[in-house]
Amino acid sequence: MHILIIGAAGMVGRKLTDRLVADGQLAGKPITALSLVDVVAPEKPTAFPGRVTAWASDISAPNTAGPMIGARPDVIFHLAAIVSGEAEADFDKGYRINLDGTRQLYEAIRQEGLRAPYHPRVVFTSSIAVYGAPFHAVIDDEFFHTPLTSYGTQKAIGELLLTDYSRKGFLDGIGIRLPTICVRPGKPNKAASGFFSNIIREPLAGQEAILPVGDDVMHWHASPRSAVGFLIHAATMNLEPLGWRRNLTMPGVAATIGEELDALRKIGGDKALKLVRREPDPVIIKIVSGWPQRFNAARATSLGFSAENSFEEIVRAHVDDELGGNVP
Amino acid sequence: MHILIIGAAGMVGRKLTDRLVADGQLAGKPITALSLVDVVAPEKPTAFPGRVTAWASDISAPNTAGPMIGARPDVIFHLAAIVSGEAEADFDKGYRINLDGTRQLYEAIRQEGLRAPYHPRVVFTSSIAVYGAPFHAVIDDEFFHTPLTSYGTQKAIGELLLTDYSRKGFLDGIGIRLPTICVRPGKPNKAASGFFSNIIREPLAGQEAILPVGDDVMHWHASPRSAVGFLIHAATMNLEPLGWRRNLTMPGVAATIGEELDALRKIGGDKALKLVRREPDPVIIKIVSGWPQRFNAARATSLGFSAENSFEEIVRAHVDDELGGNVP
Repeated sequence: MHILIIGAAGMVGRKLTDRLVADGQLAGKPITALSLVDVVAPEKPTAFPGRVTAWASDISAPNTAGPMIGARPDVIFHLAAIVSGEAEADFDKGYRINLDGTRQLYEAIRQEGLRAPYHPRVVFTSSIAVYGAPFHAVIDDEFFHTPLTSYGTQKAIGELLLTDYSRKGFLDGIGIRLPTICVRPGKPNKAASGFFSNIIREPLAGQEAILPVGDDVMHWHASPRSAVGFLIHAATMNLEPLGWRRNLTMPGVAATIGEELDALRKIGGDKALKLVRREPDPVIIKIVSGWPQRFNAARATSLGFSAENSFEEIVRAHVDDELGGNVP
Repeated sequence: MHILIIGAAGMVGRKLTDRLVADGQLAGKPITALSLVDVVAPEKPTAFPGRVTAWASDISAPNTAGPMIGARPDVIFHLAAIVSGEAEADFDKGYRINLDGTRQLYEAIRQEGLRAPYHPRVVFTSSIAVYGAPFHAVIDDEFFHTPLTSYGTQKAIGELLLTDYSRKGFLDGIGIRLPTICVRPGKPNKAASGFFSNIIREPLAGQEAILPVGDDVMHWHASPRSAVGFLIHAATMNLEPLGWRRNLTMPGVAATIGEELDALRKIGGDKALKLVRREPDPVIIKIVSGWPQRFNAARATSLGFSAENSFEEIVRAHVDDELGGNVP
């Protein structure tokens, strides 16, 4: 089995690569080849016995998708995207990468299939940014898409194209809307959503973290480990039961900041909790007020997707996967 | 006021042109110039005292949108589209016209605005084809888009782009999802939905019409006159109350074939009714079974859009507008 990961150098892409290398198989078939693409060349996993190709590529450039697809990978994970803030600041770049890049990928698959039968599984990472306020208290699987960012618009279009290309028989697509991934490893970044992770990761590493919003702010989360689990399940499951509704909101944990802090204290103690410094930021408070809080992901759950059941489990996943199981 | 109609040679485009010429004004401002574009050159209205330009153009060709927009029309009606059946049969052509053509139009407006401030009202005709079965008995304004045709996919993408370009301040857009227009004037055509009109128009003209589905089939309709009314209202209304939810399902009449036939008899008598020949067509029955039946268009109604209240009113609009008020 040959697997292509587009966006392999990102946090989720790296974790997915590691998991595939550790598993050695997908859907019971040995993984014989890995193709890893990103805007910077992804690192080649050393432990993988099969053929690995890793290269830097701009998926929005013409003639980029063709050669990637010419090798006829069996499964394609499409994780690449310009993130929300950048797509909002650079309108042209966001549309070029997130819309044109995605469409060129699908189109290259179609063209490859016109040459000789080809019907790869395509797993597209969408986002809960396809939804825009005002919301119901719980957002169900049939709620409409009214994105309030160009990024969300581009993801919603990617979902529509994925379904149409699947319906026409050009590829076998599934789109998964990831919750906000928490706890993100690495350094604090400038994403408006960064604080959800910062206030756990930094105190557990003995560092101070700034909390810019109030304790009652609720949001939808899953761990990096769950995100990888979603991708693997999407790549291997039977898609028949989805009909032509190929895009799904992934399960997650709806947690308030207050619940996050309770989990932090339970696991890291009072000394960790004391490292969270409250510094309300009106700009971030306003941005976050437009974000969804809670989903009913019944459809995905009934199809076998699963995430953590509590924020405490999310923190424990971080301790196990990033801190070797040890809280300092 | 300068008005541009893209798709001006089609049935709705011609009726809209006639209405604008008859009114002589839009939103209280005199209409001084009309630009009429279609894939074939639209007819110039003779009664219009202002400047008329009419030309044939393929909106998907490069450098087509620029010159159209370079004249800086105040209001742009975007009615042009490859219809459902053709977009399904010719995948490339549908995407080229319905997606690329629409995106190039929006982008030309943005580029014009980057040269010098420009913020035209753009009225985009979307379609209830953005919805796909399975449906609820009544489809409300927050139901999700799961189109089952490439045409519906392209319209759904047009809606998303319209909103994003509006939100970013590049244009002032509103999208309206038209019901199935009934009674369509002219000759019977091969559209799968043609029979809804054929079974009224043909018998009232003394001609036989074929009914390929059962009496209990329900669908969502409005007259050509209402469609023009929707467009005019969309072009002139205050869009502030819409927020960034710029696309609306238009009101209509949910009528069964049985109710259609009752209206036909009421207006055309038994001799008209006898001209309807039942000839069940399994292919059409199957297609129509995937179509929506009834909408709750509360949002559009609360914003001042209105249609007929009964199928009888729809038939009377046809008799008044197409038959000079006379039933033969």
